Amino acid sequence: MQEARSRGLSAGLDPVAAGAEILDLARRLMPLPRSLTGDGVRETLRVVGELVPLAVTEVPTGTPIFDWTTPREWNVADAWIADSTGRRIVDRRDSNLHLLGYSHPVRTTLTGAELDKRLYSLPEFPDRIPYRTAYWADTWGFCVTEEQRRAIRPEDEYEVCVDARLEDGHLTYAEALLPGESEDEVLLSTYVCHPALANDNVSGIALLAVLGKHLVERRLRRSHRLLFSPGTLGPLAWLSRNLEHLDRIRAGLVVACVGDPGPLRYKRSRAGDTAVDRAAAYVLRGRPGSMVEDFVPWGGDERQFCSPGFDLPVGALTRTPHGLFPEYHSSADDLDLIDAESLGDSLAATLEILDVLDGDRTYVSRNPYGEPQLGRRGLYREVSSGAPREEESFQRALLWVLNLADGGHSLLDVAERADLPFAVVASAASALLDADLLEEQS
Amino acid sequence: MQEARSRGLSAGLDPVAAGAEILDLARRLMPLPRSLTGDGVRETLRVVGELVPLAVTEVPTGTPIFDWTTPREWNVADAWIADSTGRRIVDRRDSNLHLLGYSHPVRTTLTGAELDKRLYSLPEFPDRIPYRTAYWADTWGFCVTEEQRRAIRPEDEYEVCVDARLEDGHLTYAEALLPGESEDEVLLSTYVCHPALANDNVSGIALLAVLGKHLVERRLRRSHRLLFSPGTLGPLAWLSRNLEHLDRIRAGLVVACVGDPGPLRYKRSRAGDTAVDRAAAYVLRGRPGSMVEDFVPWGGDERQFCSPGFDLPVGALTRTPHGLFPEYHSSADDLDLIDAESLGDSLAATLEILDVLDGDRTYVSRNPYGEPQLGRRGLYREVSSGAPREEESFQRALLWVLNLADGGHSLLDVAERADLPFAVVASAASALLDADLLEEQS
Amino acid sequence: MQEARSRGLSAGLDPVAAGAEILDLARRLMPLPRSLTGDGVRETLRVVGELVPLAVTEVPTGTPIFDWTTPREWNVADAWIADSTGRRIVDRRDSNLHLLGYSHPVRTTLTGAELDKRLYSLPEFPDRIPYRTAYWADTWGFCVTEEQRRAIRPEDEYEVCVDARLEDGHLTYAEALLPGESEDEVLLSTYVCHPALANDNVSGIALLAVLGKHLVERRLRRSHRLLFSPGTLGPLAWLSRNLEHLDRIRAGLVVACVGDPGPLRYKRSRAGDTAVDRAAAYVLRGRPGSMVEDFVPWGGDERQFCSPGFDLPVGALTRTPHGLFPEYHSSADDLDLIDAESLGDSLAATLEILDVLDGDRTYVSRNPYGEPQLGRRGLYREVSSGAPREEESFQRALLWVLNLADGGHSLLDVAERADLPFAVVASAASALLDADLLEEQS
Repeated sequence: MQEARSRGLSAGLDPVAAGAEILDLARRLMPLPRSLTGDGVRETLRVVGELVPLAVTEVPTGTPIFDWTTPREWNVADAWIADSTGRRIVDRRDSNLHLLGYSHPVRTTLTGAELDKRLYSLPEFPDRIPYRTAYWADTWGFCVTEEQRRAIRPEDEYEVCVDARLEDGHLTYAEALLPGESEDEVLLSTYVCHPALANDNVSGIALLAVLGKHLVERRLRRSHRLLFSPGTLGPLAWLSRNLEHLDRIRAGLVVACVGDPGPLRYKRSRAGDTAVDRAAAYVLRGRPGSMVEDFVPWGGDERQFCSPGFDLPVGALTRTPHGLFPEYHSSADDLDLIDAESLGDSLAATLEILDVLDGDRTYVSRNPYGEPQLGRRGLYREVSSGAPREEESFQRALLWVLNLADGGHSLLDVAERADLPFAVVASAASALLDADLLEEQS
Repeated sequence: MQEARSRGLSAGLDPVAAGAEILDLARRLMPLPRSLTGDGVRETLRVVGELVPLAVTEVPTGTPIFDWTTPREWNVADAWIADSTGRRIVDRRDSNLHLLGYSHPVRTTLTGAELDKRLYSLPEFPDRIPYRTAYWADTWGFCVTEEQRRAIRPEDEYEVCVDARLEDGHLTYAEALLPGESEDEVLLSTYVCHPALANDNVSGIALLAVLGKHLVERRLRRSHRLLFSPGTLGPLAWLSRNLEHLDRIRAGLVVACVGDPGPLRYKRSRAGDTAVDRAAAYVLRGRPGSMVEDFVPWGGDERQFCSPGFDLPVGALTRTPHGLFPEYHSSADDLDLIDAESLGDSLAATLEILDVLDGDRTYVSRNPYGEPQLGRRGLYREVSSGAPREEESFQRALLWVLNLADGGHSLLDVAERADLPFAVVASAASALLDADLLEEQS
Repeated sequence: MQEARSRGLSAGLDPVAAGAEILDLARRLMPLPRSLTGDGVRETLRVVGELVPLAVTEVPTGTPIFDWTTPREWNVADAWIADSTGRRIVDRRDSNLHLLGYSHPVRTTLTGAELDKRLYSLPEFPDRIPYRTAYWADTWGFCVTEEQRRAIRPEDEYEVCVDARLEDGHLTYAEALLPGESEDEVLLSTYVCHPALANDNVSGIALLAVLGKHLVERRLRRSHRLLFSPGTLGPLAWLSRNLEHLDRIRAGLVVACVGDPGPLRYKRSRAGDTAVDRAAAYVLRGRPGSMVEDFVPWGGDERQFCSPGFDLPVGALTRTPHGLFPEYHSSADDLDLIDAESLGDSLAATLEILDVLDGDRTYVSRNPYGEPQLGRRGLYREVSSGAPREEESFQRALLWVLNLADGGHSLLDVAERADLPFAVVASAASALLDADLLEEQS
C-alpha cells in the first residue's frame, strides 16, 4: 500500500494509448441518437458498460425532481422534409441533428413559407447544421444548413414527416461505484444527452469510460463514483435519490468537452476553495497555457451540483468549453475536432487531479523539536557542504514535510508552499514514514 | 413599490438640468459671509431651506462639545485698510476673504512695517487672496494679494478698521430628515463655514440642497438625513446631541468640493469596508478615471465621524479635494472653477451610491436544489441553444441571483461577483420575486 | 524614560565607528579553530566575553538533545600531507579549512590514488579550499585546492598525519542575558562552529558581540538574550535546557553572514507574520534594495527555532546568505569579502528592528469622540490654512496616532498604515502622552 500510494493513481497510464482508446470509443458513440431520454441514451450506456460496470436507473415519466417533472420519453424512427417531387431534401438519416430535439410527431404538407418558420439555421456558418432542442415546448422543427434553407421556395409545397413517439417512459442514467477504503466519495460526472456532437460531449463520455476502466484496477483510498446522465435533469434526478448521502462527496469533477486541441480549463466550484479546486489548480499550474476560472452559474452540470441548496465541492474540467469554440452546438463539432493526443492529455490531467485528491494526507512529526538527525537514517549525505541545491528537490521535500508536519498541513499544503511537485512531496513523506519520523494524523 | 425599487432613487433625474440648478444656487450662496458662526451661516441655511425643509439648531456660546467649547459668535460689519490719504487699499467689500477669520475688532493707525506682520499673502500666486482663519487665537489680520502687500511702504502710516462683533451668541447648524420605511439612516453631510470659495464648499452645499429636493419626492427604504453645519465643530455639536441614535447611521457621505472638472474621488471610511465603501467603490468602478482612496485622518468632516470613539461608516465624496487643486483656499477658487456638468455628474454619482445603499437586499431562494425551471415561468427561451451570451446580462443576472440566493449574499455581493450593473441585478431579483422564486431574508 | 523611549535603542550609535569595531573583532576571531566542539569555540566565546558578559554552558558528550546525542569533543594539534621527500604539501597551519571537520586521528602512508579518495576540492574554483565536515561519520579527509589535488601523482606515496583528539568532553555555548523591565525576551542568535570563514560567520559573531556591548548600556523594556552557539546542536541544546521558558520569547533574530556588501535580507519566521516579521519588513522597506523572503526549512539556526514543535517567532537577518555567494563555504570567504561599512549598516538595521520591537506599544485615546483641540495644547498652528502638507510628517503622525488610538492598533500598526517612519510615530505618541491625550493600554 505504501508503494501504491507513492506511485499514485496514474501509475501505468500510457496517455498515447489511452487517447487512442478514447478516440475509438468516441467513434462508436458518435452516431447513437442521444437526447434527454430514449433508446439512444440506453445504447450509449450499454457501450460504456463494456468498459466499466454500470448500474442503470430508469426514472418514470411524471416523477417530480425538485422544481421539475420527468418528461415523456422521446424516440424517433424517422424524420424528413420532402419537396413536391417526393425527394427528401432534409433527412435525419444524414444527421440526427436535423430534428429539433423533442419534436412531437407530425405528418403534413405545407408551403415553403410556412415551413421556414419551423427551421433553425446558422446564417454566419451556411454549411453547418445547428443543434437545438425544445424539451419543454409542444412543438416540432428542423435544424438545417443555411444552404438547405435558402433552397426552399416560399410558394412550393413540402411534405414533412416526424415519425416519433413522445409517450410515458423513462429518463435513464447510469453510475459506476468504484469502492475505496473509505465511504467518502469522489464524484465524476458527464452528460449523455447530446446527439452527434463529438467534443460536446462524446469526448467526455468516452474519457470517463476509459478512466473508469483504469481505476477499476487500482487500489483507492476514497470511493469513486462515475455518473453518466442526461444534462440538467440527470444530475438532478441522481441528487434527488441520494440526498442522504451527499455529505460523502468530498470532491467532484464534471468532465466534458475534453477532446479538442485547446488548452485545459478548470472551472472552480461555487465555494471556490475546496479540495478539488486546490488540486486542479495545482495540477494545471504545472501545465503552461491551461486556465483556472471562477465559477459562473451557467455551463454544464456543475450548475446543479453547485446550486445553493447543494453547494457541493464540484468543479468542471474541459478543454474549450461550451460556447467558446465556433463549432459549438453545430454539425461542425464532429470527429475532426477531437484528437487522441488531446483526449489522452485530458485523461492524464484528470488522473493527476484524482491522484492529489486520493494521495493528500496530513502527517504529524514524531520528532517535532528541532530537525531530526536525517544522516543516521540514510536520508542525508555524510559529508555536508550546506543547504540543498535547487535540483535536490527530494531533499528539500524531506525538510518541508518535516517542518510542516504539525497536523495543520496536508501534503498538498506542503507542495503548494514548497512549490514542489506533489509526487515528490508524497514520495518524501513516504520515506519519512518508513523512517518512523511521521505518523498519519488520526 | 416593486417598480419604485427597481427604478431606484435616481429615476427621473436629468443631470444636465440638475447641474444647472446647482450652479444657479451656488451663485446665490457665493457672496454670503459664512464663517464658523454668525449671520452668514444663518442666511446660507435660509437659502438651502427654500429647497428642502430644514430644522435649525442654535448652540449657545460656552456649550461644551466633547474636547471643545462653543466659541463666541462673530459678525462683521466692515473691515478695511486705508493709506494716509484715506484711500481704502484693502476692503472686505471687495472680497470677504480679505479679513482673517475671527479677527477681533480693531481701529488703529500703524506703520506699514507693523501692518505687514498682520498680513497673509501667497508669494507664489501674487494675484490671489489666501483664505485664513484664527478661530481660537485672540488676534486680527488681513489676507491680501502679494501685489497689495508689496504696495505697502514700511514707513508710511495706515489706518485699519475691523468693525466686528465677537460676543456671546450661537453656533448654527441645520438638518433635514427625509423619513424612510425604516429608522435606519443614511447621513449626508457638508460644511457651511467657508466664505467666498466656490468649489470648497459652495458646491457641496448647493449639491446637497438639490439632492434633498430630489429625494423629498421619493419613496425611501431608509431615512436620509442631510446635515449642513460649520466644519469640525458643527458635526461634533450634532454628534454630541445625537449620541443615543448614532447606531441608526448605516452609511454616510461627506460631500464637498464637487464642482470642479477633475475626476470623482471617494475616500473610504476609517473601517474601510462598510456598506458605503462598497457601494461607492462599485459606482465609481463604472466611471473610468475616478479614484477610490483609503481613509486618512485629515480632510473634511469625515475626520469627526471617523474618530475612534464614533468610527461611523461615513466616507467622503469629492472631485478634486482639499489641498489638491492649486486654487485651494484662495480667491482663485471662484465660480469659474466649477461648472454645471461636473456638478450634475457629482449629483448623479451620489444618487447612484444612495441607490445601491437603499436597494441592496438579501434574498433566499425558494427552490435552492438545482436550477428552477425558468422556461415555464417565461424567464427562459423555449428553444435552447446554450449558455447566455455576453450581451444577455439580464439572463446572466437571473442565474447569478438564483445561485447566490442563500441568505449570505446581498444584491451588491451578486453584482460585484457577477460584474454586472447593480440596476440589472436588482431588476433580475425583482423578476424572480414576481415569479415567487425568491423571498427577502427576514 | 519618555525621552529614552523616543530616542530608541539605536540612539548614540555611530555606524561607521561600530562597523570598524566589528571588523577589528572579526580579524581577531578569524584564525581561531572553531568546530562543532572544542577549544576553538571556547576561545571564540572568551573573546566575545570581553565585550558582553557571557554565561558559558558545557554539555557533556553523550547527553541526549532531542533526536540527537552530544558527540565527542574534537581538538586538533596538527594535520598535514607530506610527499615522499617529506615536504608538507597540505598543512593545516596554512588554513584550518584543510582538515575535514571531525576527522579522526590517523598516521599512515598511502599512494596518491588512495589519498585522492580522501580529498575534497572545487574543480570550478581551482584555487579555493572547500569547507567540509563529517561530524557524524567515522572518517577522515582533507580539503584542498584543485591545484593541490592535481599535483598529487597516483603512483607516488604520501604520508598523512591527523593529530587530533576525538574523545569524551563537551559541546560549548554561551549566552548573555540583558535584563529589561519585563521578563519577555528578544532572542538574538548566531553560530560559532565555522572555522576560517569571514562572512559565514565571523561577521555574525562579531556583530552580535558589538551589539551586546551597545545594548548593555541601554534601558530595555524587554530582556534581550544573545546566544552564541555551534550551529544546529547549539540551539537545540539551549532549547532543550530552556523548555519551560520558551513562551517568554516574543521575538528573535538569527544574525549571520552580515559582512558582505550585498543587500540586507530578512527571512521570515515559519509563522510569517509575527512581531519580528513585521518589524523587520518595516525597517527593510526603508532600505531600498533589501529583500524580505519567506521561510524555508533550510539555512541557519532559524531551522531549529522554527521547527514545528517550537514554532518560535524567530526570523533571520543576513546580507548575502548561505549558498548564495560564490565564495560560500570556501577559503574565498575571507576577510576581503567583508567590510566595515556593510558591518556597520547591518548593525544599524538590527538595532532599528530591535527599536521597533522594544518601542511598539498600544495606546488608547482619552478624547476619542472627535478630534481633540490640538491648538490649545500647542500641537497645532494658530492660523489655519488646511490639511498638513506632505512634509509635515509629525503633524500627520499626531493625527494618525489619535485616530488609531482605540486599543486595537500598536504604534507599528500606525506607522504601517500611515506610511510614516516608526520614530516619527513614536515621537508623536510621546507628545500626545505628555499632553494627556493618550494612555497606554493596560
